[in-house]
Amino acid sequence: MVSKALGKYVQSLHQKKYRQRHGAFLVEGGKNVLELLSSDLETEQLLATAEFATQNRAQLPARLPLTLVSETELTQLGTLANNTTALAVARLPAEAPLPLTLPESQLLLALDEVRDPGNLGTLLRLADWYGLAGVVLSPGCADAFAPKTVSATMGAFARVPVWERDLAAWLPTLPAGTGIFGADLEGDNVHRVQLQPRGVLVMGSESHGLTPGVAAALTRRLHIPRGAAGRAESLNVAISAAILLDNFFRGQ
Amino acid sequence: MVSKALGKYVQSLHQKKYRQRHGAFLVEGGKNVLELLSSDLETEQLLATAEFATQNRAQLPARLPLTLVSETELTQLGTLANNTTALAVARLPAEAPLPLTLPESQLLLALDEVRDPGNLGTLLRLADWYGLAGVVLSPGCADAFAPKTVSATMGAFARVPVWERDLAAWLPTLPAGTGIFGADLEGDNVHRVQLQPRGVLVMGSESHGLTPGVAAALTRRLHIPRGAAGRAESLNVAISAAILLDNFFRGQ
Repeated sequence: MVSKALGKYVQSLHQKKYRQRHGAFLVEGGKNVLELLSSDLETEQLLATAEFATQNRAQLPARLPLTLVSETELTQLGTLANNTTALAVARLPAEAPLPLTLPESQLLLALDEVRDPGNLGTLLRLADWYGLAGVVLSPGCADAFAPKTVSATMGAFARVPVWERDLAAWLPTLPAGTGIFGADLEGDNVHRVQLQPRGVLVMGSESHGLTPGVAAALTRRLHIPRGAAGRAESLNVAISAAILLDNFFRGQ
Repeated sequence: MVSKALGKYVQSLHQKKYRQRHGAFLVEGGKNVLELLSSDLETEQLLATAEFATQNRAQLPARLPLTLVSETELTQLGTLANNTTALAVARLPAEAPLPLTLPESQLLLALDEVRDPGNLGTLLRLADWYGLAGVVLSPGCADAFAPKTVSATMGAFARVPVWERDLAAWLPTLPAGTGIFGADLEGDNVHRVQLQPRGVLVMGSESHGLTPGVAAALTRRLHIPRGAAGRAESLNVAISAAILLDNFFRGQ
């Protein structure tokens, strides 16, 4: 049974305002909850079905407040169309330092106004696949800790550092010589250049591209060649990022 | 004003059963409706706001039944959270022939039980970007003409041929020597092989991989290398397909 106060608290975390006020966010579904429990993030509360709790007893920390709930209750409290396993409340992580020299040795992904939480989650998962140093978000991006984002990361929310920066102000403060890459139909064919996984790869929103201040900070523009018989005007932002990242990591 | 009969008809097309019964499907949102009108597909009905109809008068065929509607009516009739422009009813296209020799000269994408309509739409858009000969769907895939799929294609629904085939039965009928490629963690590193855009690239569902009969038909397994510091277990199916396709088209 879920107390009225706990139910109200969990539901408040659907909204960014309350995530920030309480310093907490929701993790929904068995796979994501197990990723959370095996990560360095702090878990406040676990709400789980008796079946999930029994099956995963070994992974549940002894001192974690656990509330057994029905599948109906879980689904009512969360945002998924259907949740038959578990839901956790986790503490929002403190922002790690972001040294300006980091992109001299590692590749960062920077997102300029990527507003769709599903796309953002897929991009975080991609950053996790390539082991990027982290993802820098402009203030206009979707919230990295919104339930839809967290679900789409398939566990990457617990591993990929994120920072919020005004990109047009931050990019020019990077050391001279830092590669700042962006996608552009007029850019260099990504198949014809040699790329190393260092610097910053900036991706913009699908509908509006990069904002002018960010576009002005690029040091190299790249384009993904379309098939000779291809007719689509553009690619989804996460798809474009995936193809570019694969090209950055070809030499490894 | 929308008549009761038209409203009922439009809403029935949210469901596959009625799309098949009526041989028709929905296209929602201004961009997709304009793609439809400029394609070879047949449009039955257009429901649009006065503003959309005025702004795009030149593109509206003279004999097309047009009903002017409010944004509220549009949103009520369709599946989008918000539709401020237009919605069309289009005829389901007749299936084109699928010659068994096609993959000797062109690349086809085949999808094995890809159940998420958003992923399917993104994959059709990707097929359109690379100008693939088309996409072969197993019977367990999402419907290529479901409203969510159509929306995610960003217009590609009007250009990319799709076929439905039992893949485990169809793949073995292809001519000997046809390359049948699939993603597999144990496969060849896609960065170390030379690929030509011919044959069939088969992608499975994210959660279950390829079904056994389909896996048995592969002639070559490919893997996408993960970053040295990467930790994600897998990539989204559309993301994996994008990276593999970019590698097939590198030599072009």
